[in-house]
Amino acid sequence: MANRQILLDRLPGEAVLTVDHFVAQDGSRPSPGAGEMLVRTILLSVDPANRSWMNGPTYRSQLSAGEVMAAFALAEVVEPGDSGLEPGTIVFTDTGWQEWAAVPAAESMPVEIVSEFSHHLSTLGLTGLTAYFGLLDVGYPQPGETVVVSAAAGATGNVAGQIARIKGARVVGIAGSAEKGEFLTSELGFDFAVNYRSPSFADDLDAACPDGIDVFFDNVGGTVLDLVIERMAEHGRIVCCGAISGYDGGSPDAAAKHVPHRLVTHRLKMQGFIVLDSLERWPAAVSELAAWVRSGELRVVEDVVEGLESAPEALIGLLAGANVGKRMVRVAPDPF
Amino acid sequence: MANRQILLDRLPGEAVLTVDHFVAQDGSRPSPGAGEMLVRTILLSVDPANRSWMNGPTYRSQLSAGEVMAAFALAEVVEPGDSGLEPGTIVFTDTGWQEWAAVPAAESMPVEIVSEFSHHLSTLGLTGLTAYFGLLDVGYPQPGETVVVSAAAGATGNVAGQIARIKGARVVGIAGSAEKGEFLTSELGFDFAVNYRSPSFADDLDAACPDGIDVFFDNVGGTVLDLVIERMAEHGRIVCCGAISGYDGGSPDAAAKHVPHRLVTHRLKMQGFIVLDSLERWPAAVSELAAWVRSGELRVVEDVVEGLESAPEALIGLLAGANVGKRMVRVAPDPF
Repeated sequence: MANRQILLDRLPGEAVLTVDHFVAQDGSRPSPGAGEMLVRTILLSVDPANRSWMNGPTYRSQLSAGEVMAAFALAEVVEPGDSGLEPGTIVFTDTGWQEWAAVPAAESMPVEIVSEFSHHLSTLGLTGLTAYFGLLDVGYPQPGETVVVSAAAGATGNVAGQIARIKGARVVGIAGSAEKGEFLTSELGFDFAVNYRSPSFADDLDAACPDGIDVFFDNVGGTVLDLVIERMAEHGRIVCCGAISGYDGGSPDAAAKHVPHRLVTHRLKMQGFIVLDSLERWPAAVSELAAWVRSGELRVVEDVVEGLESAPEALIGLLAGANVGKRMVRVAPDPF
Repeated sequence: MANRQILLDRLPGEAVLTVDHFVAQDGSRPSPGAGEMLVRTILLSVDPANRSWMNGPTYRSQLSAGEVMAAFALAEVVEPGDSGLEPGTIVFTDTGWQEWAAVPAAESMPVEIVSEFSHHLSTLGLTGLTAYFGLLDVGYPQPGETVVVSAAAGATGNVAGQIARIKGARVVGIAGSAEKGEFLTSELGFDFAVNYRSPSFADDLDAACPDGIDVFFDNVGGTVLDLVIERMAEHGRIVCCGAISGYDGGSPDAAAKHVPHRLVTHRLKMQGFIVLDSLERWPAAVSELAAWVRSGELRVVEDVVEGLESAPEALIGLLAGANVGKRMVRVAPDPF
């Protein structure tokens, strides 16, 4: 039984990722072992973290050359083994870039479909939950505060900015083009957008944040973080969600200016978090996010690329900022 | 009426501070204006922050050349004006480096003397309170956790380390000589001490912290911070108390390596704080600290330099790490 797969052929190291780092092959459909289930991949999640997994151990071990490229996905259970799940159950799991996967049942989370199918990989999935817990637990924006989001047109950033707006904050999005900025302000209700590629970026940020920045939801790190730290207001909170600027071809020794000096003088907090640590609170968070989606307060922004073979280019494009909203790769049609 | 004063003659900029930056003069005893009191300086507090105040605005405005050098002190109220205080009351206030000062009553805190007089400038004063609130509010060490303190033989560090030990943590002190390390372990109950000037510093830190570092109480910043961040355990907390490595002759653009990357991968928190923000909780904190001092659990470590004229050298020595414990300058005898 065929199983189209895309392998990580070699690790990119500190080089920029290209399609040459991957190779496609026709593998065979795996036989699940003890504690495993056979699942069929439907939608692959394309995430900046996919690239950082190649650089070294993070919250998971480093990826290895020659293995199927790792990735989270929504998948349908075909052979549940002794998991106790019904065939046809949708799970969120690490299938990797392949049509069929044998996955540990203990590391697969059943997903109750309460909205459009794809929403459970975007705004109601890991991406939206990351925005939700990071913004609310670490940043806790108050009404009237100024919240700045980097990679604001991205999968997590757009949700973080919209939740900040729902919570009554002034929201400023940082994105890489005027078109993305226009989308943020006219479609998603951001108060301001600034383009980090513009020569007037620092001045634009000043103009958008005349009273300083209370909360920074940072997906980027690097020079954008440096500029924002200089503008943080006293008692400000920096939500360290990601550092995409350093993932692909960046230096692992990239450093943050003004740390710890401005943290001391302005009583700032910087905090990293990972949504997997809040697992027991996911159902309540999904309920709240789904209610905002139903009421129209929270708009779902998705960027679906068709076909498993497109996965390498989808990831490479994501790292270059080509996406608006949550990028995913469709491997098979929705099961219902 | 005479009033010996030491002025900040010129700002050092990014140079290393020397005695040539100061000049002594015989001024006159000031006449308090509206809302002010005339106080007599007894003990001056010598703090790393004195140097950082010269570099730019912090939680206070930058110091200016030609003014009396600013400094906190314990002082005796001589003319209370309309403050409502009795003559003879001891206050904690910014007298600066002079024998007599007119200080705003609203910025002077009456001190109830419940221990040895000098203790109220060291372990029961701003220094001890800084250690107390920073360690407990930001770091919240748990029994069995590994707590590392930089500048551990210094005024704040020695108290932070001892409180961590009282709370049941494993305590590792970083100091600048083997003698200081010996003092920390044999006299103050630290579990380990490592010398940041030793060529084996990184290996010594590894050996002292085999399970990583849960809480880092950082007074130093710079390369010591970089090495510690690399060794932080998941969910670790970094208490950003100071950055003395960058205050005197350091670059204002000093950067922290691995920020934000390791904050994300290891879910770390870095947080600055200033003890002045916890003013309403000071009395309860002083009571707890005083009880630990009385019981012998918390040893008071002081380094008193005699005479106002010694203040410049006392500060310069402090910045070079010459002190053990809280350095202060005695300007007048204790009033009782």
